Amino acid sequence: MSASSPTYKALEQTAAGHEVDLDSLLEVAGWNDEGLMPAIAQQFDSGEVLMMAWMNRQTLEETLQTRRVCYWSRSRQKPWRKGESSGQIQMLHQAWLDCDGDTLLLKVDQTGPACHTGRRTCFYLALDDKSARVDTAPLMSAEALYGNS
Amino acid sequence: MSASSPTYKALEQTAAGHEVDLDSLLEVAGWNDEGLMPAIAQQFDSGEVLMMAWMNRQTLEETLQTRRVCYWSRSRQKPWRKGESSGQIQMLHQAWLDCDGDTLLLKVDQTGPACHTGRRTCFYLALDDKSARVDTAPLMSAEALYGNS
Repeated sequence: MSASSPTYKALEQTAAGHEVDLDSLLEVAGWNDEGLMPAIAQQFDSGEVLMMAWMNRQTLEETLQTRRVCYWSRSRQKPWRKGESSGQIQMLHQAWLDCDGDTLLLKVDQTGPACHTGRRTCFYLALDDKSARVDTAPLMSAEALYGNS
Repeated sequence: MSASSPTYKALEQTAAGHEVDLDSLLEVAGWNDEGLMPAIAQQFDSGEVLMMAWMNRQTLEETLQTRRVCYWSRSRQKPWRKGESSGQIQMLHQAWLDCDGDTLLLKVDQTGPACHTGRRTCFYLALDDKSARVDTAPLMSAEALYGNS
């Protein structure tokens, strides 16, 4: 949890309200070897954590400009505008970067299920020390989600 | 967002309440090349997303058994029992694994600040398309947090 650059270190004890240029902050952000960072999507009003996916600088900037959430698909190696095949889009309410500049939190308004299984959230396997339990059934089938794509 | 193994694929359309053995699920989970996966910590009652850190199988199993959250420190390459130097511990309320088996959500009860900057949450830099704004001041100084360690 140590700061990843002098820029982030300098912000640590800064008073609320201080502003910095986005470009200079993203220039020294903690992108991984693939130029990506994790982005957590949280429903803005209920607080439910919906999913985690990845963004590069390009898809983060697009998201901040258009307010429609766009991730980077690692499997397809291209921008992934959430909902482009399922219709279940995410609109951005507020984006946050963490203290080390290597993780994003996106407060979003999610239409319908966020999860490709048809569930509202991807986090549906409840763990204890011996077993995992399926906590919720799908809201809709994969066929209903992707049938027209 | 495609499932990472036949096990996860088979769970997708499973009814709520279905249980599987934890060991078999973790055996085929989506650990990265370093044997880690991201773990999101969320305050169980307020819903605030506090931080994101990493876990390997050993620290996840310890966390599920002891109910005190233990991450894997990538910088120190050893287990990191949250709060061992700051005193600001996390107790586990409920752990969740996502649909692909490659991200954890931990609902926790966090004592004091989760962030090494002395803030409640690590996500304190609010982004718009031009700038970033420091949203909150520290609750306590780094000296107060780590002075006795």
